[in-house]
Amino acid sequence: MSKRDNMLTLNAFNPLSEGGIGTADSALIARRRNTFGDAVPLFYEEPLHLVRGEGVWLYDDAGRPYLDAYNNVPSVGHCHVRVVEAIARQASTLNTHTRYLSDVVTRYAERLLKTFPSSLSNVLFTNAGTESVDLAMRIARYHTGGTGFIVTNFAYHGNSTAVAEITPAFGSGVPIGANVRTVPAPDRFLPGTEVGPAFARGVADAIADLERHGIRFAGLVLDSICSSDGLYVDPPGFLQPVLDVVRQAGGVYIADEVQPGFGRMGNGLWGFARHDIEPDIVVLGKPMGNGMPIAATISRPEILAAFALRSGYFNTFGGNTVCCAAASAVLDVIEDECLIDNAAVTGAKLKQGFVDLMRAHASIGDVRGAGLYVGVEFGEPDTREALRIVNGLRRARILISTSGPAGNVLKIRPPLPFGRDHVAMLIDATAALLAKR
Amino acid sequence: MSKRDNMLTLNAFNPLSEGGIGTADSALIARRRNTFGDAVPLFYEEPLHLVRGEGVWLYDDAGRPYLDAYNNVPSVGHCHVRVVEAIARQASTLNTHTRYLSDVVTRYAERLLKTFPSSLSNVLFTNAGTESVDLAMRIARYHTGGTGFIVTNFAYHGNSTAVAEITPAFGSGVPIGANVRTVPAPDRFLPGTEVGPAFARGVADAIADLERHGIRFAGLVLDSICSSDGLYVDPPGFLQPVLDVVRQAGGVYIADEVQPGFGRMGNGLWGFARHDIEPDIVVLGKPMGNGMPIAATISRPEILAAFALRSGYFNTFGGNTVCCAAASAVLDVIEDECLIDNAAVTGAKLKQGFVDLMRAHASIGDVRGAGLYVGVEFGEPDTREALRIVNGLRRARILISTSGPAGNVLKIRPPLPFGRDHVAMLIDATAALLAKR
Repeated sequence: MSKRDNMLTLNAFNPLSEGGIGTADSALIARRRNTFGDAVPLFYEEPLHLVRGEGVWLYDDAGRPYLDAYNNVPSVGHCHVRVVEAIARQASTLNTHTRYLSDVVTRYAERLLKTFPSSLSNVLFTNAGTESVDLAMRIARYHTGGTGFIVTNFAYHGNSTAVAEITPAFGSGVPIGANVRTVPAPDRFLPGTEVGPAFARGVADAIADLERHGIRFAGLVLDSICSSDGLYVDPPGFLQPVLDVVRQAGGVYIADEVQPGFGRMGNGLWGFARHDIEPDIVVLGKPMGNGMPIAATISRPEILAAFALRSGYFNTFGGNTVCCAAASAVLDVIEDECLIDNAAVTGAKLKQGFVDLMRAHASIGDVRGAGLYVGVEFGEPDTREALRIVNGLRRARILISTSGPAGNVLKIRPPLPFGRDHVAMLIDATAALLAKR
Repeated sequence: MSKRDNMLTLNAFNPLSEGGIGTADSALIARRRNTFGDAVPLFYEEPLHLVRGEGVWLYDDAGRPYLDAYNNVPSVGHCHVRVVEAIARQASTLNTHTRYLSDVVTRYAERLLKTFPSSLSNVLFTNAGTESVDLAMRIARYHTGGTGFIVTNFAYHGNSTAVAEITPAFGSGVPIGANVRTVPAPDRFLPGTEVGPAFARGVADAIADLERHGIRFAGLVLDSICSSDGLYVDPPGFLQPVLDVVRQAGGVYIADEVQPGFGRMGNGLWGFARHDIEPDIVVLGKPMGNGMPIAATISRPEILAAFALRSGYFNTFGGNTVCCAAASAVLDVIEDECLIDNAAVTGAKLKQGFVDLMRAHASIGDVRGAGLYVGVEFGEPDTREALRIVNGLRRARILISTSGPAGNVLKIRPPLPFGRDHVAMLIDATAALLAKR
C-alpha cells in the first residue's frame, strides 16, 4: 500500500527497508510475502515473530518476552486456561451449526442478552465484527426502507464491500459509498456540555444532506468510543443528543461495541453504558471469544422483524458450539477474576501515568480514555514522534500501536488482566524514550 | 420467513406446527426463538437436539445415534481427534493475528497454495465463505474497474450485503443487485457436448446485457458444481467455454469452491479440477477447518495487485494461528486417511445406489453428482415427495436435506469418512420410504 491516509499503513513495516531484521525473520517475511502478496500489513519497523502467549505476555522465537499493552482480542489474557479448556472440551464433543437445537448455544445467547437492556433481546451470531456490522446495516435497511448511513470522519467498521463503504479509515483508495455521509468526531476542544449537542448537530446536518440527495436515512453506525478517530469518551452522556436526533429522523442507532465491549471501559460490559443510552442495534466482536472467531449483532425485535420475514439469516459457522463455549468461558473469567473492576482501577493508574508524563513533556497534547483503553496524542499532529515511541517501546519489548487520522495517537489497549506492575513498566519505558528526544 | 422461494425455507421447521415435538425440545425451541427471533431457521418437521458427534455419527440428547449424510463442514468426521488435538495444542500456545510473523500460518499458506495451479499463488484468510466471496468481489472490482457480476439463477454465495445481492437463492424478499445478472444453470437435458457452449452463451448474453446498461463487467461468480441450483457436474470439462467467454470480456472468473472443495468430488482437492480449468480467483470455506471458522480467497498476484495497493486487507481473526492449525490438521487427515479416494469409491457406490432406486421408482427423475455429493431429483418438480423422504429419513435417524429452486432435489453430502455400510443404510432406508408411498 502506498496511501498515507489508509489506517492499514499506520505503524506498518516497510518491506523496502529491512534494516535491523535478523536473517531468519527476513526469510519468513519473504515467505509470508510470497503467499499473502502485498495486501496484508505487518506491525513495526522490525516485525515480530511470535510463538507463545500467556496472560499479558507474548514470546518471540528466541524466547524473549514482550509485555502486551496492545491486543484487545485475547481480552482475558493470552491462552487463558479456562477458555482453552472450554474450547478443547467442546471441540471433542460436538461442533455444529444453528440449524439444530443446542443447549450450549441457547444458554450462551440467553446469558449474553441478560447483560443488555431488556429492549435488546434478539441476537444473531456471526464470525467477525465485519459480518456483524454488515448484518446490522442489512437489518437497518429492511426496517427503515432507507439506504443512507452516517459514520465519523475516520471511522473503522470493517472490510466487506458494504462495510468498507462506511469505513473512511481505509483512505482515498477505498471510496466511501454514495449513500454514506461522514461527520466530524466529537470535538475535544469544546466545553463538556457542548460536545454532545455539537456532535448531534453534525449528524442532523448529514441526515439533511442525505435527504437533499434523495437518499432515505437508514442509520448511524458509531463506535461508542470512536477508537479509530482517536478515542473520545468524555463527557459521559454526550451520546444522548445524537441518539435523539437519529430516532427523530426515523433512523436506527447502531452501536459498534467491537472495541469498547466486554468490560474494557471499566464500567459495565458495554461502552454505551458510559453514556446511559439504549441503542437500537449493538455490534460485538473482537474480545468475545478471546481470539476465537465469534461476533454478534444484537437488536430490538421490532427492528429485526422485517429482515427476519423477508430475508432470514443463516451463517454456517456463526454460533457454532465451540466458539459459543469459548465465549461463555470468557464471561466466566470476566466475572470470576473481576476484570471490569481491574479495568477501572488499573486503567485509572494507566491514564494517570500518561497525564503525569504529559505535564513533563510538551510533545504530548492530550491524554484521554476510560478503563484499559488510553489514547496519548502528540500535538501538531506529530506522527513521527508517536511512531518513535511505538517502535522504541517495541525494542524495549513492550507492545502498543497508533490511532487517529494522522497516526499521532498512541493506542494502549492491553489484555484486561494488566496489573499495576505492568503499568509501571510501560510508563517508565515511555518516560525513558521521551527523555531521549 | 414466509417466502416460498427462499432457500432458507427449504426443509425448515414450521414453528406454527409443533406436532411430534417432545416437551423438552418444545421448551428449547421456545428459548431459542426468544433469543434468535424468527430470523434463523431450524431443520426438519421435528427439529433435532444434538449433543455429541463422532465420525459420521451424531447423537441427540437422549443418546440416540443419527447417521450424518448431510454435513459437509465436519468433513474429515465429527470431532476428529487429530483436528481436536491441533486446536487444543495451538489454543494453549498462541492465538494471534496476521500482523505478526507466524511460522504456523505461513507454513499452512504455503501448503495450501501448493495444492493449486501455480498461477494461483496468493492467499488471503478470512473467517467464512461469505467473507471470502465478498473479498473476491472487491478484488475483481479493483482489477477490472467494473462492478457487474454474473451468477446462476438459484446461486447461493453468502449473506453479506454485497454477496446477498449475488445470491438469488434468498428469493424475492432479497433483491438482486442492479449490477447483477443471472443466467440459467447448466441444462441437463442437452447432449453432453452442448452443455458447456449453451451455458457459455448464457453468460455471453448476460455480459452484453450488462454493457447495454452501461455496467462494466467485473466477473462471473460460479459454484464449480452449482450446488444450490441442484448440482451440475457433468460432463467434465463443460466449464472451459464459459471461462473463455469471461476472460475474453475482460472479466474475472471466480470459482466458489466452498461446497465442492477439499476433496469431496473424489478427484483432487478442488471442484474445478474436474473441468481441468484454472480460475482467476478461488473461494474456499466450509470444510477448511472441519468446523472452525476459517476460509480463504486465493488469487493470481496480478489480479490481487490493484486491491493490495489501493485498499489492502487485514482481518482480525482471519488466518489466526488456532484456525490455521486446525486447517493444517484437516489436510493431514485427508492425505493420511485417503479421503479423496474414499470420496471417489464410496461416492460411486452411493450414486449407483440411487441410480438403482431410480430404475425402480418413476418418482425419481434424475440422479447426479460426483464423489460424496449426490443429488436425487423428484420430477415435475415434486417438492412434497422430496420432503417426505427427508423427514422420513430423519425419523429413521439418517440426516440429509434438499436443494434446488423447488427444493425437490435430495442433497446428500456426508462427512468424507462415509463408508459402504453407511451407503447401504441410507439406500435401504430410502428404498423402504419409497416403497411406502
